[in-house]
Order: sequence, then C-alpha cells, then structure tokens
Amino acid sequence: MVDIATRVHNHNWKIDPIVRSLLDTDFYKLLMCQSVFRNSPDTNVVFSLINRTSPVRLADLIDEGELREQLDHVRSLSLRRGESTWLRGNTFYGKRQMFRPDFMEWFEALRLPPYHLEKRDGQYELTFEGKWPEVMLWEIPALAVIMELRSRAVLRDMHKFELQVLYARAMTRLWEKVEQLQAVPDLKIADFGTRRRHSYLWQDWCVQAMQEGLGGAFTGTSNCLIAMKRDIEAIGTNAHELPMVYAALAGDDAELAQAPYQVLADWHDEHDGNLRIMLPDTYGTEGFLERAPDWLASWTGIRIDSGDPAEGAETAIRWWRGKGEDPRQKLVIFSDGLDVDTILALQERFRGRVKVSFGWGTNLTNDFRGLVPGDALAPFSLVCKAISADGRPTVKLSDNPNKAMGPADQIARYKRVFSVGEQVARDVLV
Amino acid sequence: MVDIATRVHNHNWKIDPIVRSLLDTDFYKLLMCQSVFRNSPDTNVVFSLINRTSPVRLADLIDEGELREQLDHVRSLSLRRGESTWLRGNTFYGKRQMFRPDFMEWFEALRLPPYHLEKRDGQYELTFEGKWPEVMLWEIPALAVIMELRSRAVLRDMHKFELQVLYARAMTRLWEKVEQLQAVPDLKIADFGTRRRHSYLWQDWCVQAMQEGLGGAFTGTSNCLIAMKRDIEAIGTNAHELPMVYAALAGDDAELAQAPYQVLADWHDEHDGNLRIMLPDTYGTEGFLERAPDWLASWTGIRIDSGDPAEGAETAIRWWRGKGEDPRQKLVIFSDGLDVDTILALQERFRGRVKVSFGWGTNLTNDFRGLVPGDALAPFSLVCKAISADGRPTVKLSDNPNKAMGPADQIARYKRVFSVGEQVARDVLV
Repeated sequence: MVDIATRVHNHNWKIDPIVRSLLDTDFYKLLMCQSVFRNSPDTNVVFSLINRTSPVRLADLIDEGELREQLDHVRSLSLRRGESTWLRGNTFYGKRQMFRPDFMEWFEALRLPPYHLEKRDGQYELTFEGKWPEVMLWEIPALAVIMELRSRAVLRDMHKFELQVLYARAMTRLWEKVEQLQAVPDLKIADFGTRRRHSYLWQDWCVQAMQEGLGGAFTGTSNCLIAMKRDIEAIGTNAHELPMVYAALAGDDAELAQAPYQVLADWHDEHDGNLRIMLPDTYGTEGFLERAPDWLASWTGIRIDSGDPAEGAETAIRWWRGKGEDPRQKLVIFSDGLDVDTILALQERFRGRVKVSFGWGTNLTNDFRGLVPGDALAPFSLVCKAISADGRPTVKLSDNPNKAMGPADQIARYKRVFSVGEQVARDVLV
Repeated sequence: MVDIATRVHNHNWKIDPIVRSLLDTDFYKLLMCQSVFRNSPDTNVVFSLINRTSPVRLADLIDEGELREQLDHVRSLSLRRGESTWLRGNTFYGKRQMFRPDFMEWFEALRLPPYHLEKRDGQYELTFEGKWPEVMLWEIPALAVIMELRSRAVLRDMHKFELQVLYARAMTRLWEKVEQLQAVPDLKIADFGTRRRHSYLWQDWCVQAMQEGLGGAFTGTSNCLIAMKRDIEAIGTNAHELPMVYAALAGDDAELAQAPYQVLADWHDEHDGNLRIMLPDTYGTEGFLERAPDWLASWTGIRIDSGDPAEGAETAIRWWRGKGEDPRQKLVIFSDGLDVDTILALQERFRGRVKVSFGWGTNLTNDFRGLVPGDALAPFSLVCKAISADGRPTVKLSDNPNKAMGPADQIARYKRVFSVGEQVARDVLV
C-alpha cells in the first residue's frame, strides 16, 4: 500500500536535509560547549573549514547552491522538545543532570550563527565567526554537510543497482570487520565517526551493526542523535579546541605555558570519573606530561589522538608509574586513524597493562575505499577548527607535524614555549 | 510516517504467502497448459515432488503445518482481473492473443486441485492428482513453496544484521556475475530461475539486476508475474512433461516411438517462429534427431537441457547441416546448470556458428553457496514431475542417466524403443 502522506511529504521537500537535528553532533561538543558557556561565554572565535586533502577539489564536486541550502537548513534548526528532554533527563557517564538548567535554557533558544562561504582554487572557504559557545556548534554539522554532499555528488550519476551493490559491498566490508572484532577479548570500542561519515543513514547503519555484532563490547556512539534514537550511550569528553583557544588568549609566554593545564583545571571543577580524560597532544605529549601538575595524575585516563599510538600509550604508562599511579587502573583511549588491524595490535599490546578503549572514526563510518571508479568515495581529511580567538591566531602542534596548524611565527613561538623538539611526521590519511 | 493501514494489514496476515498469484509460474507452463487443454483435457495425471538431493532432509527442516498453510494458500488463488487482462491483451513472442478465449475462460475459473502430503524418511511425499491441465499448474508453485520454506527455515534464526549482510553478500556476488556478462559480445540471456529460486523477492531482485546491468542482452524472464510487474518479456516454450505423458499413453511400442514427434506435431499446429523450439533429450537427443521427420528441420531451434551442452549443440549443428539447413539461422538455447563460466565458454564456442541464447536458472536466482554455516542455503536439486498418466508410469531417460526417472522395466523398454545405448553420467547439482 502506498503511504500517500509520506509520498506527498517527499514531493514537497525543498531539500533532502543532511543535518536534521542540533543533536546530530558529537557529545563532547555539548560537554565542551557547556564548559565554554560557563567559563568564556563572550570570547569571539573564528572557525574555519580546512581540507587537508587538497586533490579532492570540493568546489568542483559540490554545487554551491546545494551547499548553501544545507547550511541554511542547519541554521533553521532548534532543539526540539523531545531532544531537550533527553538531554535534561538522561544519565550520561552515570551522572544525572549533566547539563545544567542555565545551559539548557540557552541551548533551547539557540540558532546557529551565520556562515561565510566563498570559492577559492577549487575549494570552499567556509568560516563561522561569533561567540565561542555558538560558533563551536557549527563544527560537526559543517563537516557532516560537506562530507555527505561530496558522497551525494559521486552517487548522483549511479544507477539504482550500482547503488544497491555499492552499499552491499560496503556492508559486507564493515561486517567482516565486526566479525574480526568479535574475536578480540575484553574489547571496548565506540563510534567516533560522525565528522567523517559517508552519510547520516550510513553512520546509523554502522552503529546498529556494531551494536548487533559486538554487544557489550560496543560502548556507544559520539553522535547524540543516534544515541538518543538507538537508546545507547553517548560518548566523548573534550577536544583540542579548548587548549587552542585558551592558549591563543594567553597574555604572555608564562600564561601560554599554563593554558593547557588551565583547561583541565576548569574541566576538573566540572567533571569526574570517566570524563576526566586528558588530551595531551595539542602542544606535544612528552612536554605536556613532564610539566603537568600532580593532580592530573589522579585523572582517569588519556586520549591518544596523534603520533605513534603505541608510543603515546607507553609514554603515558611511564608517566603514571613515575607519579606512583597504577597504570592498570588507568584508561587509554585510542582515537586516531584506527582500523581493524591497528585496533587488534593495540588491544593485544596493552590489554592487561592499562584499561584500553577505542574511539573508531573514519574507517568505521566511511570505508568506501576502492568501491567506485577513481576511488571517488575514499575518505579524506577534512576538519573544521578554531583559527582565531578574540583576534589572535590559534596554534596546534600535535604529535604529528603534518597535523600542525597556525601562522609560522606562532608555531615557532609555541614550539619554544612548550619545548617541542624534533617530531616524526606521519601521513594524515583521514 | 507510519502507514497504519500497512501495519494493520501486516498484523492480520495469517501467513506470509510465498506464492501470491497464479501468474507466479513459468510462462511455458501456460503455453503447455493451453496445448494440453486443447489436445488432452481429460487425461488423468499424477505429479510428484522429487528431491534428488537426499541429504537435504526437507521434512526435518520445514514444518508440516507451515507447508500446508502455504499450499492451501496457493489453492485459494484465482486469476485476478488485471492478470487476466495481461494474458489476454499482451503480445507474447510477437503474437497477439496467444491465449485463446476458451482457454482464458477456463483459466479464469480455475482453482488448483487438492494435494496429498505425507512425511517419509525425512522427506515430504507431495503429490497432485487429477486432470492434466489443472495438475500441471502445481509444479512451479509447489517447487517455489518448498524452496522458499527451506530458505526461511535457515534464515529464521539469523539476526537482523546477519540477514542484511547475507543479502549484501549475495547481491555483491550476483552483480559481479552481471559485470562479467557485460563484457560478452552478442549475449542473449533470460531468467529461468523461478523453480529453484531462493525466494520470490530475491528472484525479483535478480531480474532487476539483470535488466539494469545487461540492458538489451537480457531478453526476459520465465516468470509471468515478474514479467507483468516489470514490463518485460515472458520467455519459455515447452518442457519434458509433454513427451513424457504422450509416451506413457502410447498404445504400443510403435506409438511410443512416435510420441515425441506427435508432441511437436501438435505444437507445430499451434505455434510458429521462436516458439518452435524442440527439446530433444527426453529419450536421448542422438536418436531423437536421427529419426526425426523432415519438417522438424525447419523449426527455429533447439533447447539443450541435459548432457554435455557443447556436445548437444554440435550434434544439432551436424543434424541441421545434414538436413540442408544453415545452422547460423538456427537458435540454440542452453538451459542446464549454467553459471557464468559455462555461459562464457558456450558463447565463445558457438557465437557466429548458431544463434545462441541462455536460460539461466538456479545459479542466477539461488546462488547462496558458502554464505551460511553448513552451507545450509546451497541450492539443491528439487523437481516436480508427472509420474503417471491415466495410470501408466511415465519415463524420462534424458542425456544424463542421473536425470532418468521411471520404473526399471519401463526404462529398459524405452531404451530399447528409442535405441539409447551407453550414456555418460554427469552430476546433477542443481
């Protein structure tokens, strides 16, 4: 039977929206947003899209009009009542009322601020400027829109069966990964794939596949909307934007050196337990740990997001030991460029030595490598970052110089202040 | 939006029917039925299910109650108005009004006759007895019901994602076959897979995949319902049951020897062009052609359905040449146990020497080999045949002794009458 209402509804869609909810974002953005809303509500920031894979000429692939329609649609969204209820009433990380009433009231009234879009050299320059708590919420929807418009552009010329077979192949591939992971003892793994997903529907399928295939080993998803819809845990803690903006706002070198710890001190005030996860690589993991205050050693764990992941974890283990902590009580979350082989190797190496957990992103939700001619659906490295705060440029060094960003003179200054020496460059594939 | 009507309809289904239309059958059954309706309307026949793959213990796999429900449902079907209109108004093989008004009136009033079902030694004994034109229409629905109930029995314990991945793998496999066939010049291929299909929905998908992937090289489907729904050609001519029943009714050995030609004489009266396709192997191709009347050489072509297919085609080519016919004007239809490799080899060998066409069955619509544990979805060799006519047993010799059937003394008699000597046994896989 034809569902006439649905058909008519379909006919009348002006666009087929990619982002349909303000909850279609990563959980840690909301946690950080609340923190920023409390600590730096009036800081002015600029976020910008950065395509690290320049051969993917986005402006040639994606129609500007469609892109504007999708971004305008995101601006039309506001938190729905049921979504607000979920945020207010749900238990996150074992805690009720994770989101405070003043934050929720602000969030309920929020619409995302304007964007600025221009084409240059086959790429889109897409920037967002305004108050930090508002602008920061553009990051994930902007990435999701661009990623999915690129997928749609490639899929547009495919026939019905080519499409079905494409997805059949991608499903087969993901399920084979799930089957490999089923054999891993004590695995804990979450979906971190929102920002680089092939599409919303595909991420949702991947999450269900992980849920079905891995049971309790699948700990949740970073995507709030999917977590709500599928009744699973929303996962995430904090990201580089906090130390990057704090650092940019520092008055002098001494303040700059302290900025990353100030971020965590503020976080310490707000959160405990499994939310006390440090992200040490913004200005070099080694130096960050060397100069870290003692109270940080009591934190629950660490997230390794650049550089050689095994080396990063070994560094953390040595640091905890040096502080008299038992690494077996500590959590190490790997979240950089994972795929099944690296997950298996890291789990094998660190199982029993620390608590291991994985935040699996691009190769979970966007592994379409080799599935269409010209590899036109291969994932690529797209980010959306804070590039300035109150008019001052931000800097990221990372443990991989290929992930560094900021003006050259500022990078040099930061390297000096944070005593960062030689770094090993690693390809940034995703 | 929920389509409440569909949901309520789903709730209220007593069963999920496998065969939902009397047109869900092979086109040649209808052509033969019309012929039988004219020439032998009162012949009494018994059709019986025969599982040539005895290790597949159907009675252990399929619940008897479910089987009865499905068969009862088939008995509740009658030709719907739109179906009748399609049969009356459509052009088949370039001919309008293929089905005569008296036959259509009879068919419109038809309900299938009762069945007899018993369990024995892990198998079902399923027989149908009555007037030939009615009983013969049980063959395809009976096979489709058993095949699909077996699939459902295996699929029942699978989880949602296992199921999705199973079909993803089967789709991927079929599409890879289609891609191989795309490269074959002058290919002509049709779906003959109704009787051994994995399921109705799967056959329908396979037909669409062939349509999409092969375009004009895909000449149609034997399934009338799918031909009607997808607006493509219904394909098929005649089968072994005609010579088998004619032979069983023969009064003496001389009449027996003439029976296969009497079938074709009757067919000659009714049909021309691409419907004049002989099926020579019922009692041995070699002898059939040797003793064939001259007028048969003018027929359009031949269908090779047992024995070594290349040898069968070579025999036909020699025979045509001997009769002064140009084999390049003749059509050879291969329809026995095909898969992509055999299709490629036969096309390569006979292209340009004769007109080649393929009727692709089991490995098109039921290639689930190796996709579940214990290979429990592998196709197997199930047939439903006329085993007696007016109380006399039928006999089939075929070009492969492993496909022979009938009582031993009658087989011996037929071999003598049709001068069938040594035959090469070939495995019957599907």
